[in-house]
Amino acid sequence: MSTIRALTPALYHVPLPVVLTDSTHGEMRCFELVTCRIADEDGVEGMGYTYTVGAGGGAIRDLIARDLAPRLLGEPATTIERLWQRMWWTLHYAGRGGQATSAISAIDIALWDLKAKRAGLPLYELLGGFDARVPCYAGGIDLMLDVDALLAQTDANLRKGFRAIKMKVGRAKLSEDVARVRAMREHLGADFPMMADANMRWGVDQAIGAARALRPFDLVWLEEPTIPDDVTGHARILRDGGVPIATGENLHTLHEFAHFVRAEAVSYVEPDVTNCGGVTAFMKIAHLAESFNLPVTSHGAHDVTVHLLAAAPNRSYLEAHGFGLDRYLAKPLRIVDGCAVAPDSAGHGVIFDWQALEALRVE
Amino acid sequence: MSTIRALTPALYHVPLPVVLTDSTHGEMRCFELVTCRIADEDGVEGMGYTYTVGAGGGAIRDLIARDLAPRLLGEPATTIERLWQRMWWTLHYAGRGGQATSAISAIDIALWDLKAKRAGLPLYELLGGFDARVPCYAGGIDLMLDVDALLAQTDANLRKGFRAIKMKVGRAKLSEDVARVRAMREHLGADFPMMADANMRWGVDQAIGAARALRPFDLVWLEEPTIPDDVTGHARILRDGGVPIATGENLHTLHEFAHFVRAEAVSYVEPDVTNCGGVTAFMKIAHLAESFNLPVTSHGAHDVTVHLLAAAPNRSYLEAHGFGLDRYLAKPLRIVDGCAVAPDSAGHGVIFDWQALEALRVE
Repeated sequence: MSTIRALTPALYHVPLPVVLTDSTHGEMRCFELVTCRIADEDGVEGMGYTYTVGAGGGAIRDLIARDLAPRLLGEPATTIERLWQRMWWTLHYAGRGGQATSAISAIDIALWDLKAKRAGLPLYELLGGFDARVPCYAGGIDLMLDVDALLAQTDANLRKGFRAIKMKVGRAKLSEDVARVRAMREHLGADFPMMADANMRWGVDQAIGAARALRPFDLVWLEEPTIPDDVTGHARILRDGGVPIATGENLHTLHEFAHFVRAEAVSYVEPDVTNCGGVTAFMKIAHLAESFNLPVTSHGAHDVTVHLLAAAPNRSYLEAHGFGLDRYLAKPLRIVDGCAVAPDSAGHGVIFDWQALEALRVE
Repeated sequence: MSTIRALTPALYHVPLPVVLTDSTHGEMRCFELVTCRIADEDGVEGMGYTYTVGAGGGAIRDLIARDLAPRLLGEPATTIERLWQRMWWTLHYAGRGGQATSAISAIDIALWDLKAKRAGLPLYELLGGFDARVPCYAGGIDLMLDVDALLAQTDANLRKGFRAIKMKVGRAKLSEDVARVRAMREHLGADFPMMADANMRWGVDQAIGAARALRPFDLVWLEEPTIPDDVTGHARILRDGGVPIATGENLHTLHEFAHFVRAEAVSYVEPDVTNCGGVTAFMKIAHLAESFNLPVTSHGAHDVTVHLLAAAPNRSYLEAHGFGLDRYLAKPLRIVDGCAVAPDSAGHGVIFDWQALEALRVE
């Protein structure tokens, strides 16, 4: 019997190795990591986490500690769907997404890790198992780099084994975006998979103009051209811009993804397992995409997500981007010939260096 | 110059005078109140608040204290739209609604109170001014009362001056809902404005069946027939059920309201000023409704909201329901001949008995 005996969240401020820039969040110097450890009566432990780009982490920890933990302790860890519903409805009023979903995500990931460990299976096998090798791209956060620095970063990514690369767009002048994307295409050659991410920078017609200007460079997708609240706007951008659209890192419920899919407003469905509702919600979103003949990609948390895409026949690319969290992991993600490889140990296999993290802990 | 000098949140657990029941939240014994006091350099103070039905309040306080206050201190309190945008984008990642919007709401209400006080105007006049007298209904939370108790509660509401009443529906058997609504209609007579609230209890086709069964009783509206995530479902219920639909207490962004309005999925637009983004967002939602020829109603926080509907020419009914908060207010809302009357003092005029609240404060 796997009864939840302990559920412990913690908050850390993790400095970034280098300052990151995109068109919406400006300069990012640190991110917030919220971890959640769940132990059952037999002493088996599952671990989950979520993160923010700098605000709201304290609230997420508070939701876990104050509101969710008391409602989960003593419950069977095995009935994840039931616990997920309980968490969702506990926080529904004034919740229904946002920080509530991030808190649920951290707990849900820990519960799936625990379940996989008890079953002696790597998470991707527990989830069905498709292919442990997942095509993977390097997610550059590089809007303010000049072209030389951008190409130098790109060469470093090629040396690391990446065979697909995403860059930021959304500079003040569209001509600068076009010049940067052209330089990357010329540097990488035809057929090399390249994506561009606008981080919600544009209005709808502006995004259509940008998509048309970028069409000659054969992007795999253009990401978050406008705010995630505008479903029909995305449909127009996709239809009239003529470039495939990825979005999802700022959608926080299964239903929000359904709205985009039904409206033909997205080409690449892109949930983040740490803010969409955890493994439980991510896999439903992947299946929703599959049912509509759409590929699924991912945002952030590549070490956990590699398992989810390794279980999804409609997986496209995994985003490799972890905010420099690799420094605090026992075994960072392996990239081989452009593919990330889901580890074969039981659970998700993400093991933090808790001692190193301790210095970053926030009360 | 009205510069923000102090911004202080607090969390209280307020016990309910009687246990409340509805079809989704079950029994509610206490609610969480999060207050926010903002003082400017001249010592003028504005007050705002938000609440939850029992979970998430600690997170809201944390968002205000940890994430938002440091970004507002020293800023001019006069530029509310600018500060609102800053708050929104500070919490956007892992936010975009939910607890983030409740935190923003509490601060925004305080900023508008402060502005109205400095201008020497009651809030409803600052917002344009339409009519200080707002038709008002008693919001009963009474799903588990038997018919006799329901009618006794109704008589008490009539004695308090109410001339419109809402009741709960969503019992396990539709026949019980029908019997209760019929008893109320017979008790109150033809033409007495009656509403019914299902608190998201039903699936879409079930809701259509219920609406059809309740059609003979001339409800002003049927509220929250299904989950707020299902926009097209609401449109079907409205079209095929044949009863006007109210919804909005669980929508947390202006854009979510736009989706419902555009899809012809709502008849009475029903934001809650404490979780939709405050006065700033509530008035935009009221104007959105007006632009589509729809009436606006409200949820909760009647003492603040009376000002907003008193400034909206498309206002329908104010919901009078404050979770027993009246016990902690210096001047509870006045009801005269079925209308709530917006107070004429400067600001919103809501003054808490801080000393009495102190005993309920939570660390």
